[in-house]
Amino acid sequence: MRPSGRKTDQMRKVSFERNFSKHAEGSCLVKFGDTHVLCTASLEEKTPPWLRNSGKGWVTAEYGMLPRATGERMKREAAAGKQGGRTQEIQRLIGRSLRAVVDLEALGERQITIDCDVIQADGGTRTASITGAWLALHDCLRWMEGRNMVKVERVLRDHVAAISCGVFANQPVIDLDYLEDSAAETDANFVMTGSGGIVEIQGTAEGAPFSEEQFATLMGLAKVGISELVTLQKQAIG
Amino acid sequence: MRPSGRKTDQMRKVSFERNFSKHAEGSCLVKFGDTHVLCTASLEEKTPPWLRNSGKGWVTAEYGMLPRATGERMKREAAAGKQGGRTQEIQRLIGRSLRAVVDLEALGERQITIDCDVIQADGGTRTASITGAWLALHDCLRWMEGRNMVKVERVLRDHVAAISCGVFANQPVIDLDYLEDSAAETDANFVMTGSGGIVEIQGTAEGAPFSEEQFATLMGLAKVGISELVTLQKQAIG
Amino acid sequence: MRPSGRKTDQMRKVSFERNFSKHAEGSCLVKFGDTHVLCTASLEEKTPPWLRNSGKGWVTAEYGMLPRATGERMKREAAAGKQGGRTQEIQRLIGRSLRAVVDLEALGERQITIDCDVIQADGGTRTASITGAWLALHDCLRWMEGRNMVKVERVLRDHVAAISCGVFANQPVIDLDYLEDSAAETDANFVMTGSGGIVEIQGTAEGAPFSEEQFATLMGLAKVGISELVTLQKQAIG
Amino acid sequence: MRPSGRKTDQMRKVSFERNFSKHAEGSCLVKFGDTHVLCTASLEEKTPPWLRNSGKGWVTAEYGMLPRATGERMKREAAAGKQGGRTQEIQRLIGRSLRAVVDLEALGERQITIDCDVIQADGGTRTASITGAWLALHDCLRWMEGRNMVKVERVLRDHVAAISCGVFANQPVIDLDYLEDSAAETDANFVMTGSGGIVEIQGTAEGAPFSEEQFATLMGLAKVGISELVTLQKQAIG
Amino acid sequence: MRPSGRKTDQMRKVSFERNFSKHAEGSCLVKFGDTHVLCTASLEEKTPPWLRNSGKGWVTAEYGMLPRATGERMKREAAAGKQGGRTQEIQRLIGRSLRAVVDLEALGERQITIDCDVIQADGGTRTASITGAWLALHDCLRWMEGRNMVKVERVLRDHVAAISCGVFANQPVIDLDYLEDSAAETDANFVMTGSGGIVEIQGTAEGAPFSEEQFATLMGLAKVGISELVTLQKQAIG
Amino acid sequence: MRPSGRKTDQMRKVSFERNFSKHAEGSCLVKFGDTHVLCTASLEEKTPPWLRNSGKGWVTAEYGMLPRATGERMKREAAAGKQGGRTQEIQRLIGRSLRAVVDLEALGERQITIDCDVIQADGGTRTASITGAWLALHDCLRWMEGRNMVKVERVLRDHVAAISCGVFANQPVIDLDYLEDSAAETDANFVMTGSGGIVEIQGTAEGAPFSEEQFATLMGLAKVGISELVTLQKQAIG
Repeated sequence: MRPSGRKTDQMRKVSFERNFSKHAEGSCLVKFGDTHVLCTASLEEKTPPWLRNSGKGWVTAEYGMLPRATGERMKREAAAGKQGGRTQEIQRLIGRSLRAVVDLEALGERQITIDCDVIQADGGTRTASITGAWLALHDCLRWMEGRNMVKVERVLRDHVAAISCGVFANQPVIDLDYLEDSAAETDANFVMTGSGGIVEIQGTAEGAPFSEEQFATLMGLAKVGISELVTLQKQAIG
Repeated sequence: MRPSGRKTDQMRKVSFERNFSKHAEGSCLVKFGDTHVLCTASLEEKTPPWLRNSGKGWVTAEYGMLPRATGERMKREAAAGKQGGRTQEIQRLIGRSLRAVVDLEALGERQITIDCDVIQADGGTRTASITGAWLALHDCLRWMEGRNMVKVERVLRDHVAAISCGVFANQPVIDLDYLEDSAAETDANFVMTGSGGIVEIQGTAEGAPFSEEQFATLMGLAKVGISELVTLQKQAIG
Repeated sequence: MRPSGRKTDQMRKVSFERNFSKHAEGSCLVKFGDTHVLCTASLEEKTPPWLRNSGKGWVTAEYGMLPRATGERMKREAAAGKQGGRTQEIQRLIGRSLRAVVDLEALGERQITIDCDVIQADGGTRTASITGAWLALHDCLRWMEGRNMVKVERVLRDHVAAISCGVFANQPVIDLDYLEDSAAETDANFVMTGSGGIVEIQGTAEGAPFSEEQFATLMGLAKVGISELVTLQKQAIG
Repeated sequence: MRPSGRKTDQMRKVSFERNFSKHAEGSCLVKFGDTHVLCTASLEEKTPPWLRNSGKGWVTAEYGMLPRATGERMKREAAAGKQGGRTQEIQRLIGRSLRAVVDLEALGERQITIDCDVIQADGGTRTASITGAWLALHDCLRWMEGRNMVKVERVLRDHVAAISCGVFANQPVIDLDYLEDSAAETDANFVMTGSGGIVEIQGTAEGAPFSEEQFATLMGLAKVGISELVTLQKQAIG
Repeated sequence: MRPSGRKTDQMRKVSFERNFSKHAEGSCLVKFGDTHVLCTASLEEKTPPWLRNSGKGWVTAEYGMLPRATGERMKREAAAGKQGGRTQEIQRLIGRSLRAVVDLEALGERQITIDCDVIQADGGTRTASITGAWLALHDCLRWMEGRNMVKVERVLRDHVAAISCGVFANQPVIDLDYLEDSAAETDANFVMTGSGGIVEIQGTAEGAPFSEEQFATLMGLAKVGISELVTLQKQAIG
Repeated sequence: MRPSGRKTDQMRKVSFERNFSKHAEGSCLVKFGDTHVLCTASLEEKTPPWLRNSGKGWVTAEYGMLPRATGERMKREAAAGKQGGRTQEIQRLIGRSLRAVVDLEALGERQITIDCDVIQADGGTRTASITGAWLALHDCLRWMEGRNMVKVERVLRDHVAAISCGVFANQPVIDLDYLEDSAAETDANFVMTGSGGIVEIQGTAEGAPFSEEQFATLMGLAKVGISELVTLQKQAIG
């Protein structure tokens, strides 16, 4: 029995609130249950130095948590003077995941920065971030299309979404909340596209190593879950 | 004529959403029009080193803006590796303002940290922060009272709220939004208590110096506005 | 009775030692009693990036204290690896105060940096800094005039000086020294021009909030004091 | 055809030079072809703060590259003033991988830090680091056993080793060198134990997303490769 | 011919102004011509961690330059966020030089920090710092003796002073000013005690290497000069 | 008697392993007994800003120690977020020593960076670094000569090598190892050219000051030792 009473293959309620932010070219408040992440997409008419005059653009991401998004207040990274290893790992993952479905040449020499800021955390902040970031990116591109800068369909080749799965109390379950995440023996994050391609897999044994079979079960759960998330993304923009 | 069509003595619509955050002991999403600030209060059972064994507690504040809270994306302070001068100035102001109405001995040897994170900015983020922070602090103390740790009335001696006033297009106006703030000749922030005492005054000539009479007019506007804010705080906790 | 035996409206002995520094284009050692600040003005033939090709120049300030300027040695900010919030607040204030009396277009695309370094502190370092910085700036402009770069009168539109006032032992007093400052119930800094315009007001209740009347009294003291400081500035350059 | 002429399932020549360092309690210079990593294990008789009085110890890792380990000189992280995101990601991975086979209670309240410093890089530095780090850790524990501090077999429950696999020129291949890594469509790192348990999987689509079948092929290659690495570890300590 | 018209073995006018600082336990403004350094000694009743319970104290130094101490304004180290290599090298040298004549056991478990802040620079700031620091240290110990904490004679075993010598325009000269220092072929700093012992020698070929004979000449000049400096120190405290 | 059994004028076994690194334009693993330093030379086709369009190039050095190069693990400087004072002092010394024998105009507008990374430390790391760095620099220039970029003989005017000498157990000895270094009363480093010119002298009294005669003895030892090192360098490149 999961602490939340969910079935092993049942995700939390997922919602997307588009245009959450007045200023950003694209934005989305994504909720996976009590995990709430604000994703904003910011367009800049310049690329990082290493892409100058390459004809290509760039999509990158930054990630942050409000200090009291969590059960105990965490030190503010700006006050600490640096971003921790976990923050850097997550923002690199979000950026790679989005770039996997973007045609950087079709974007042209521009940069889109997706900021994923966790307003409230209850497990799965990185997967919610990726799933919501896709919508913010989509809306930014739609905004650009309205100004004849790009064709959305040429830049954004597919959906991308992410979910965590894990072994909790000897049961493979999907979309771990904080209680499950803290106690899980194995924790895996999957990032997949709308057409079912795998973009990123991160599996970690928190306690005992896991077997190939266990991992296959987790991947099976993830495929179904991500397919649902993509359907929700389609409804959101439909 | 103000860009928003407001009268010179008309504040923006102000609202407080208490218990916005699942985890914090007290929290409030405060809105002054399109300026939205999430205030959370976090209780720790320890004081800063200089108060150890003094019998007194401490109330402090930290302030941050999400990178795309503003019209143009700002560099994330955590990525920059330090908090800017403006951030430090504001968070010191919030902390001082709250401590002006707190009995630190009645609080006991504990620290309450108020995080004010600007989700969306449209001028007046520091005054909205102070006004919302008071509610987060109040609710944190109420939470503590429910656990017999303190008496709210003994710790929190009064309300505190803040408003900006300025001279815009030669007219003294209250509660400047971003458009007004960028063009104002004079900009003043007032922090006052529920009983009308002044806690903090910050007046700055952006262009030409201002006169004593102009300043008196601004203070007059502020007194009325803060009195309204205190009424709204009372309704919110009523 | 004030610890120093001064009357409530009596400032400390103020002196200016111009050309204190062999290298700087303008410099002044300003003393407000035992508070000694070295102000140097450094000219650079370039502006900050955001003013490039604008035809305008910039005046900015930096502030520092020698580690043992104070009663107890303070950690050297260079060794700590960052400037504290108080330092940043003060140097921003000095810069704003000077810019209030400078015509940046008449200055041309150049930057003048005023360094205010506290050699010895006894309260009122920020007000002494502003008052002395004006002289360093003036002398830098005079140096430039001697090289046909600017006309001093066109760039520097007025004097600017500053003084602190506060409520000490229930008495409004001017120009608080350290003993008074540590014990003051209310502390206010005023920055005004030679023609009596207000450039900046910062009033803070250290203990109980203060009333509008008290504040008016402090401002009255400040006006007289700043007028005296401007007279002393005029004598110094006369 | 692979640039090196290796077969798709052929790893580079792997060697371990134990006791490479005169000072460390355990050390190993591991070579995967032209990738050379020096792994040292340092014992401290204290644990991190969060484990104090828990009866448990800790194993952690740090990772670095000499500036000219690579084809182009990289900025020295010590001079840059911080460890980059990639460094932090890798050292967290090494630490997690080792802890997966360590009984922290049997270790007792001590910390072992494994430093993995890349002397020369040619792809696969993180997998070589993990594989060599296990030997450094083993030898450190053997050193401790010689002093009756622990029993190696009780602390170190299994081997752990790692290998990268990827899709290069449409072919799944094992142990990518730099040339292959830069051009690979998919890149996956596998960390497994001597008994075949999975500790960590990291799979990334560098270009197009990959399929479940492709991923299964990569995992198949990795299982065989890691089994060989474990055999080599056994020979090295045999 | 030296730019200043001095003879090759002629030092600049040296002066010491004791008790320059109101707050410090010992202080001295030392001038070597136009090089002016404020040295303050600050006593703390605690030692660095590595000396705790050793019965020994510590003497350390910090060094800084005001940004416009030099001909061109230098970036403030506090704003840059770190002390440069030159600063660290000099402050380590000052600390070592002083400790060479201090009996740390006789000092007891206390720390004295000497801050050497260059108010104005014209070459030879490190040698002026050492020479003035000795006086600040002496006066701090005298202050302590007045409180029966130490006996000056037991703690301070000898004088220490320093001078630079160099080869300028093919001539060995003493006490280089900035013009000479910038053009010198060889630059050497000597730190010696009152009894003629050598504490530190730093010789650097700026251009062509120098010979043993040249070096011996420089040392000869230094011996005479330092002997004069010690005489001046004795007069100052006499 | 020296701990190692060496005679007072006997250096440790010195060896150079050229081309240690696959990637660098020049590289050398230098060993002075158990002190092992990897020196790599990296060529960049650009100069530091202050030399742009001067026709001159630059040679600079960076220095680092692996955390467990020493008997006790030292904190990794990249993790600490800055290079310590000792590191900066040493890398400045290495750079100066090399530049003393380089014709920067003959090098042309390029920069060569020598990285000296201590793999294992047993005293004398800075002198081993200088001695090995010369070989890395030489080989880099030879590599450039092979591409018709420079003539080695025109750029590299002489050899440079370094050795430490000190007074250990009242005996002047050469090439101190760690045991001797920790206990030495006096420690001096000498950097000299192949033709016997002195490039740098650093002498420090660790305990009691030393006399001119003692210093002359140390210099005598150093001259013989450096002459041997230069012979070894010549054999290495012969």
